[in-house]
Amino acid sequence: MSDYVYGRNSFFEALKNKRVIKAYVLDDSRIKDAGIPYDIVDRKKLNGLCRNGNHQGYVAEVKSFELSDVDDMIKERNGLIIMLDGVEDVHNLGAIIRTAECAGCDGVIYKSHNAAKVNDTVAKVASGALEYMKVAEVTNLVNVIRKLKEKGYWIVGSAGEAKQLYTDIDYDMNTVLVIGSEGKGMSRLVREECDFIVKLPMFGQVSSLNASVAAGILIYNILNKRSK
Amino acid sequence: MSDYVYGRNSFFEALKNKRVIKAYVLDDSRIKDAGIPYDIVDRKKLNGLCRNGNHQGYVAEVKSFELSDVDDMIKERNGLIIMLDGVEDVHNLGAIIRTAECAGCDGVIYKSHNAAKVNDTVAKVASGALEYMKVAEVTNLVNVIRKLKEKGYWIVGSAGEAKQLYTDIDYDMNTVLVIGSEGKGMSRLVREECDFIVKLPMFGQVSSLNASVAAGILIYNILNKRSK
Repeated sequence: MSDYVYGRNSFFEALKNKRVIKAYVLDDSRIKDAGIPYDIVDRKKLNGLCRNGNHQGYVAEVKSFELSDVDDMIKERNGLIIMLDGVEDVHNLGAIIRTAECAGCDGVIYKSHNAAKVNDTVAKVASGALEYMKVAEVTNLVNVIRKLKEKGYWIVGSAGEAKQLYTDIDYDMNTVLVIGSEGKGMSRLVREECDFIVKLPMFGQVSSLNASVAAGILIYNILNKRSK
Repeated sequence: MSDYVYGRNSFFEALKNKRVIKAYVLDDSRIKDAGIPYDIVDRKKLNGLCRNGNHQGYVAEVKSFELSDVDDMIKERNGLIIMLDGVEDVHNLGAIIRTAECAGCDGVIYKSHNAAKVNDTVAKVASGALEYMKVAEVTNLVNVIRKLKEKGYWIVGSAGEAKQLYTDIDYDMNTVLVIGSEGKGMSRLVREECDFIVKLPMFGQVSSLNASVAAGILIYNILNKRSK
């Protein structure tokens, strides 16, 4: 499967990540030594390839990011899946995928609407982890949560106003860890599905961590608890 | 001396802390009663003021960031100082300052050469934490380490190739936690000053975390160990 990316930044990011199958450019001054197939085309052709997007003279056919199914994550059975309920920043998404891969999680699930999605920036920030980590994009998180509960998973959400500390739970169970969005946290419907809601203790004035930092602390705490 | 901050959180945090010399906004609905000079400007002007940063409609000229001395951190005596040995990415510096503030650390020390420094991007990413956290820029980390040792601090460095796990230490002592640079880790001279060198366990293929995520995990683990 292939997709098209367009615009200077996306084009060169894809090139750097060796995802380009074929380049379409106005002239070959910056592409001729890249060692990939390319066509010199006119603006009309470029406009057509990206449906009149702002291509800045650069369009590339690229390999699609291969997403996974939630079912594949369940088969892995390391018993830890990360679910993102509206994380909006692609840097956070990339960093969380990287952390999940380092920690041996079974997968990262995010929703397809109003949330960051896998793209070249995410791939870059994930620093290679996207090649190894199972990532699934789903339309309805609540449906996925219910399915995972049926399969024996417990749902642990994180929220600043929770009563339980994140260190109060043993995590000695198949766990879905839910990270809310940067601004609004978890949505009401997802929150209502949680078996536990935990918080990180805050000792300063600012009292909220970056989403990918919070995810890292929560994920590594689960590993620690399990290793005891 | 003055600097510029941008983005909603940084803007209102600076406002709250009375650092704003002059505000530049798209409309006066939220600023007119603040009692500070302001200009209503267009997006183009805002883009120019913050060099096309994500200003969200808010830019402010502020008093320069006031850096601290290491001596001020020692006086605080919560017994946890974060030292950055060459962290290069301003997003990582900002996220680490934010985490340090949330965790109640006494300060963040970084070196003045070949490393990220406090600027408006750092302030934005730190999401207000820069107003509260003591941050010191020093020319020679080794000299500072020796001084902190004399004052009773133990130096804990982090490195992928360490033998001890980060969870193996009690941290029941005044601690300087050293975070190395994104690419190269700690420098040799700093490493040689460390009393302990610890690692985060890695279970995947990528085997390195984002520097600010790693710092977050290490810092919150110290809090956990001390709370027991």
